[in-house]
Amino acid sequence: MAPTSETLTAERILEATEEVLRRHGPAKATVVDVARALGVSHGSVYRHFRTKAALREAVTKRWLDRTSGQLSGIVAADRVPEDRLREWLAALFAAKRRKAGEDPELFATYTVLTDENGTAVSEHITDLETQLTRIIQAGVETGDFAATDPEASARAVFQATGRFHDPCYAREWEEPGTEADFAAVVDLLVQGLRRTP
Amino acid sequence: MAPTSETLTAERILEATEEVLRRHGPAKATVVDVARALGVSHGSVYRHFRTKAALREAVTKRWLDRTSGQLSGIVAADRVPEDRLREWLAALFAAKRRKAGEDPELFATYTVLTDENGTAVSEHITDLETQLTRIIQAGVETGDFAATDPEASARAVFQATGRFHDPCYAREWEEPGTEADFAAVVDLLVQGLRRTP
Repeated sequence: MAPTSETLTAERILEATEEVLRRHGPAKATVVDVARALGVSHGSVYRHFRTKAALREAVTKRWLDRTSGQLSGIVAADRVPEDRLREWLAALFAAKRRKAGEDPELFATYTVLTDENGTAVSEHITDLETQLTRIIQAGVETGDFAATDPEASARAVFQATGRFHDPCYAREWEEPGTEADFAAVVDLLVQGLRRTP
Repeated sequence: MAPTSETLTAERILEATEEVLRRHGPAKATVVDVARALGVSHGSVYRHFRTKAALREAVTKRWLDRTSGQLSGIVAADRVPEDRLREWLAALFAAKRRKAGEDPELFATYTVLTDENGTAVSEHITDLETQLTRIIQAGVETGDFAATDPEASARAVFQATGRFHDPCYAREWEEPGTEADFAAVVDLLVQGLRRTP
């Protein structure tokens, strides 16, 4: 087996795809560009991803998973649930803001890709809501939170903080006052979750 | 004075402009189209609105004011603040959803216009947040709500319910589960505002 095919992993293809998307934009990037960037035939790429659509979906999922991966550590951390909740929401906002701010072109590219890949996006949201559910469930167990349905509360918290993670608000994330707005929303939600003594 | 110029009010021009926008779309609608629809010269239109941009801004403001006008009655209603808050949020969601659902083309047109008219939009948001502040302030006075800064709480409630009034979510408003999502977010926010006994 030739060295290129030995080392041609799905992960390497996805890295190259991201780079091609960054360079050519979502409308022009092709599987041939990806193969050329890797020095392999486009057939080799198709052995890992059967269609261009499948490749685009996988690269979208990888991009979204990077955020959920960063957050999962907070869910499992050894801190009181309220602190974990606040930290998790702040980390989600920070991650999205960093993605939008540090590489606006790639962010715009992924906005096109997420519009195309509704399934990857809803799996991502389910993943994030599941993480939030675990934190709220932990708060119910310690008696800090009063939620009767932690899953529904998690969904409500996720939706109520949309302004601070949904890409449709990306333009507003650098406006003055955003930090104070975020803090006020989080305080109100945490107050809503707390058990009345 | 000729009868047409006697009766040519700003309101009549704005009505005609909305009709022209509905018919031609935001990219093609011109002041000449508006004048033709009214049977007047375009000079007569310019006597009321000095530029095409001013006319577009005024028609955007009128469209947004229709929603705030409907809601202001709830602020002044003779009901307990929590009920007014719930009713106000439900009425805002219903008004936006109706606008998006009943006349999707006009809604798309106004989405373009609101993107152009940032000032009209921020005045609209300030107007809505002021209405919310009055309800929350009333709740603080009756002892139902615990907010130390009703204006900041109003802004937080407005932002936390963005999913149910911000046009960027219009596509999701008819999805199953939206009513339950809305109820869960409102319950959580109301719980957060309540005074701990």
